[in-house]
Amino acid sequence: MFEYEYPRAALAVDCVVFGLDETDLKVLLIQRKLAPFQHAWALPGGFVRLDEELDAAARRELEEEAGVSDVYLEQLYTVGTLGRDPRERVVTVAYYALAKLSDHRIRAATDAMGVGWFSLDDLPKLAFDHREIVEHAVLRLRGKVRYAPIGFELLPPRFSLTQLQKLYEMVLGTGLDKRNFRKKMLAMDLLVETDEVEQGVRHRAARLYRFDRRKYDRLTKQGFEFAM
Amino acid sequence: MFEYEYPRAALAVDCVVFGLDETDLKVLLIQRKLAPFQHAWALPGGFVRLDEELDAAARRELEEEAGVSDVYLEQLYTVGTLGRDPRERVVTVAYYALAKLSDHRIRAATDAMGVGWFSLDDLPKLAFDHREIVEHAVLRLRGKVRYAPIGFELLPPRFSLTQLQKLYEMVLGTGLDKRNFRKKMLAMDLLVETDEVEQGVRHRAARLYRFDRRKYDRLTKQGFEFAM
Repeated sequence: MFEYEYPRAALAVDCVVFGLDETDLKVLLIQRKLAPFQHAWALPGGFVRLDEELDAAARRELEEEAGVSDVYLEQLYTVGTLGRDPRERVVTVAYYALAKLSDHRIRAATDAMGVGWFSLDDLPKLAFDHREIVEHAVLRLRGKVRYAPIGFELLPPRFSLTQLQKLYEMVLGTGLDKRNFRKKMLAMDLLVETDEVEQGVRHRAARLYRFDRRKYDRLTKQGFEFAM
Repeated sequence: MFEYEYPRAALAVDCVVFGLDETDLKVLLIQRKLAPFQHAWALPGGFVRLDEELDAAARRELEEEAGVSDVYLEQLYTVGTLGRDPRERVVTVAYYALAKLSDHRIRAATDAMGVGWFSLDDLPKLAFDHREIVEHAVLRLRGKVRYAPIGFELLPPRFSLTQLQKLYEMVLGTGLDKRNFRKKMLAMDLLVETDEVEQGVRHRAARLYRFDRRKYDRLTKQGFEFAM
């Protein structure tokens, strides 16, 4: 095996896992036990093994450091800024994922002090350039709802249009007009009306919908039609 | 300086530079002088230096290997598949860019056999997994025209709507309805009508337009409005 003879950067992965609860969009952080940035909060992540795929490294670190498995990770971008790690040159491949908070019982790994979900508008000081990575991930997610459906991983199997709108509002960080939202959403032909209505609510029970999975997958793959 | 004691992957960059001429979308390739994949065509690229930013490495390789400078490179994604390089573990950060063919006088570097622009539907056999990287870049570019303006780097300062439509058709790889295209394009309020008309054409000379640069930049940054 031929090896290049020059000093090499270390290669890492970092994961931005967004979680949704009833009120807002949160991000999963772990608290570092060791220096550098000892005791600071940081994205779960770590070094890629020489015989390991990048995606596999991200999944492994997420499981090891925060006890989270079974999330669908997508590559975000790669950051290699000089000096981003005080120790040496570290290039990190950032990933992001959406998760339902209630599905994941997180736990701090032995090499972490803590683990938790933080609201985006109330993040603690983060280690390294992790705050920038989180901001980049938020922009990507907000961009993405413009051309791909979201919600499948985040909503219960049957949901009301109000729940769906709430989800979009949390992701976009802004209120949306109810009538307009419903009109556009139904026009996409992505939702299937079910026979069921909300249970145990005091107001008038709303109709429940589900995603048309085939349509959802197709739109995810192709993106929305470019209307030209 | 603290160094992790384990074998490390080599870190590389590769560039997919798309060029437009009058007829189609082309991609810039160089021909490898040395093994592996000796004499095969490949994307311009190479190893990142330890003290070099990723973007700078991509720009340097493009200049060194193909004589191309001054293109706006965007990060595409990072590929680290095991076995993608027969020599050892190489993780590559792929970039892509749009260029006007006529602006770039390409030249093969001393360590390349050749350099050239190839039509996407007539690519030679490519080294490594470079064909996959090209395909990924095409999908990204096609996806991108759905939510960001294109054309500034590719069209002359003043252009007809036919030229603009041709550009979209080449990028999307499909014909578009003329009336519909114009209607949508003008509705975006991105174009400014000029006093000029086409010169030296035999048919009726068409009105020339230019981009509203401020609007263009804003749309590039924010993406198109998500109509909700």
